[in-house]
Amino acid sequence: MNKYNICLLKGDGIGPEIVNEAVKVLDCVADKYGFQVNYDEALLGGSAIDAKGTPLPQETIDKCKASDSVLLGAVGGPKWDKLPGKERPEAGLLGIRGALGLFANLRPAVIFEPLKSASPLKDEIIGDKLDVMVVRELTGGIYFGKRGRREADGEVEAYDTEQYKVSEIKRIAKVAFEMAMKRNKKLTSVDKANVLEASRLWRETVIEMSKDYPEVELNHLYVDNTAMQLVINPGQFDVILTNNIFGDILSDEASMISGSIGMLASASLSDSSLGLYEPIHGSAPDIAGQNIANPLATILSVAMMLKYSLNEPKAAEAIENAVNKVLAENRTPDIYEEGKNKVTCSEMGDLVCKAL
Amino acid sequence: MNKYNICLLKGDGIGPEIVNEAVKVLDCVADKYGFQVNYDEALLGGSAIDAKGTPLPQETIDKCKASDSVLLGAVGGPKWDKLPGKERPEAGLLGIRGALGLFANLRPAVIFEPLKSASPLKDEIIGDKLDVMVVRELTGGIYFGKRGRREADGEVEAYDTEQYKVSEIKRIAKVAFEMAMKRNKKLTSVDKANVLEASRLWRETVIEMSKDYPEVELNHLYVDNTAMQLVINPGQFDVILTNNIFGDILSDEASMISGSIGMLASASLSDSSLGLYEPIHGSAPDIAGQNIANPLATILSVAMMLKYSLNEPKAAEAIENAVNKVLAENRTPDIYEEGKNKVTCSEMGDLVCKAL
Ligand SMILES: CC(C)[C@H](C(=O)O)[C@@H](O)C(=O)O
Ligand SMILES: CC(C)[C@H](C(=O)O)[C@@H](O)C(=O)O
Repeated sequence: MNKYNICLLKGDGIGPEIVNEAVKVLDCVADKYGFQVNYDEALLGGSAIDAKGTPLPQETIDKCKASDSVLLGAVGGPKWDKLPGKERPEAGLLGIRGALGLFANLRPAVIFEPLKSASPLKDEIIGDKLDVMVVRELTGGIYFGKRGRREADGEVEAYDTEQYKVSEIKRIAKVAFEMAMKRNKKLTSVDKANVLEASRLWRETVIEMSKDYPEVELNHLYVDNTAMQLVINPGQFDVILTNNIFGDILSDEASMISGSIGMLASASLSDSSLGLYEPIHGSAPDIAGQNIANPLATILSVAMMLKYSLNEPKAAEAIENAVNKVLAENRTPDIYEEGKNKVTCSEMGDLVCKAL
Repeated sequence: MNKYNICLLKGDGIGPEIVNEAVKVLDCVADKYGFQVNYDEALLGGSAIDAKGTPLPQETIDKCKASDSVLLGAVGGPKWDKLPGKERPEAGLLGIRGALGLFANLRPAVIFEPLKSASPLKDEIIGDKLDVMVVRELTGGIYFGKRGRREADGEVEAYDTEQYKVSEIKRIAKVAFEMAMKRNKKLTSVDKANVLEASRLWRETVIEMSKDYPEVELNHLYVDNTAMQLVINPGQFDVILTNNIFGDILSDEASMISGSIGMLASASLSDSSLGLYEPIHGSAPDIAGQNIANPLATILSVAMMLKYSLNEPKAAEAIENAVNKVLAENRTPDIYEEGKNKVTCSEMGDLVCKAL
């Protein structure tokens, strides 16, 4: 029997409650598909600051590295917002990405058929379906370049450095090309090559690599144009490949267009099979501890984990199907619609288990 | 009688035809409101490359500086897309912004009542109206920081520098605060202060300045969150203040949400009254020379020029009213709707003159 060690980073706000439901579901599929899961827990973000005085204790890095995969709830909250940059919960998130080498962030923006009416876009704009995969570079660019303050012309200047090496572009482009091959063989690389040097190197490198993927239809869009196209014609996109900062902005925009932000999962992958999986929504401190949060994005993050890190694609599919089935009748408050059952966070977890 | 010298940069693609209509309208209001306009012309972008071998000839800078204000059509086209970065039409645009010190870019995103149905967003998302003013810093940040290629770990690395000095942030923030005072006294400053040092200085400086504007309600949003909020609740925004690159992305997203991209004007202002006015849409080479382009964004750019550079607010308002009146019945192909008159570019110019 296959055994997997999963490190849980429950985090802050609604993090603990949604991770608990995801664990419930993971245990159910493990039973059904004949594998075993052992859990360890570690602190990240605000909870780590409170307990250890730092958002990313060394112990957390060690535990994550020793695991087969990591499941994260969410980090952050107003309690820690006044701390200086490096001591904030977000620094823990950036730190763990760097420490585990999680250079590839996959953010699917999909519309769940039963939730179609939740999209802010008109039906004729959405068309038949929306199913975009944003592949965001996650350990390079302006997030990790040199930054600081200096004197310039007798006053203070602050700076950050956007930077990409060819090898960094290549490895993330490879993920995107492979992803496109498994999907509709359409890849849109997004940059600002009409202004930025790092974008020009990005574009050259992607074009160079495209020779290895003759079946993939590749096009290039500027980031400003992409922000527009997502709003007026999201159906044109299959896989979007972009850098760290543009990916941050565009993946959030794309997820909102789906109208299903409480439903969207994400995967952050490294060179090895170790990955980190998390819902794309935040820690929602305002509703924490009330058992009303939507655990489905975290449950679907477990499905991504099964697919990308644990090589249990059948179990992954079973979760996705179960979620779709449960959604037809049952809703947490954030996605509630008249005529459906209103359920709590833990009831939603139970329902997915039952549907499995 | 007041006399104004206007430098026309007709540019490429549909640039010449839309500028011609805007000039027609400017001459009409000049007659009506008792001022005189003299025109000079200069080359920018592709047309300058073809004639002079550079996208921004010195003569163009000189002519612009000698004028009271500049009206630009649009630059760029596939013909020049293969040239290296510094020789492309876009370099002319960035160059003229720098040369004239046009640090403040104002991009209104409004929905024109008769065009309301053109927004890709659902009616209940748009609500009563959309009227957002994006104030984008235009001569600093990553657009003008040091960039290049270097060796790093034995391979090629490309880099760009995001950078802001306190004085640069102050002068653009001042424009935004003043704008908010004239509008609904609500200002949203957009940054990525949880990651970028330049954003942290941006936020500190804006907070510091807000003490001089106690009546303005100021809030801060991260750029990724703003990209989301524009899609699900654009009505929450009045004035958005942001840096060069975020402003590029967000103003395009906002304009698309209005559904009226063929209608949107922009102003780029300097320390003096000299400004550059242009439609936000591009040069549309595919329809150039066919007399079917929509000249209204350029005509409305003239209205902005009258308001911000020439201090002729009544003439500005007259143009805006005339455009609204004409729109009720008449449409160029890009905004055509059944039951309306389909008109050409030059007919649209004539109609606005007649409505004045
Ligand atoms: C919290 C923040 C640092 C982070 C990012 O910008 O990467 C978040 O927005 C995300 O997208 O995961
Ligand atoms: C053409 C390009 C350099 C320019 C920019 O990025 O500023 C354009 O997108 C704009 O917004 O005016």
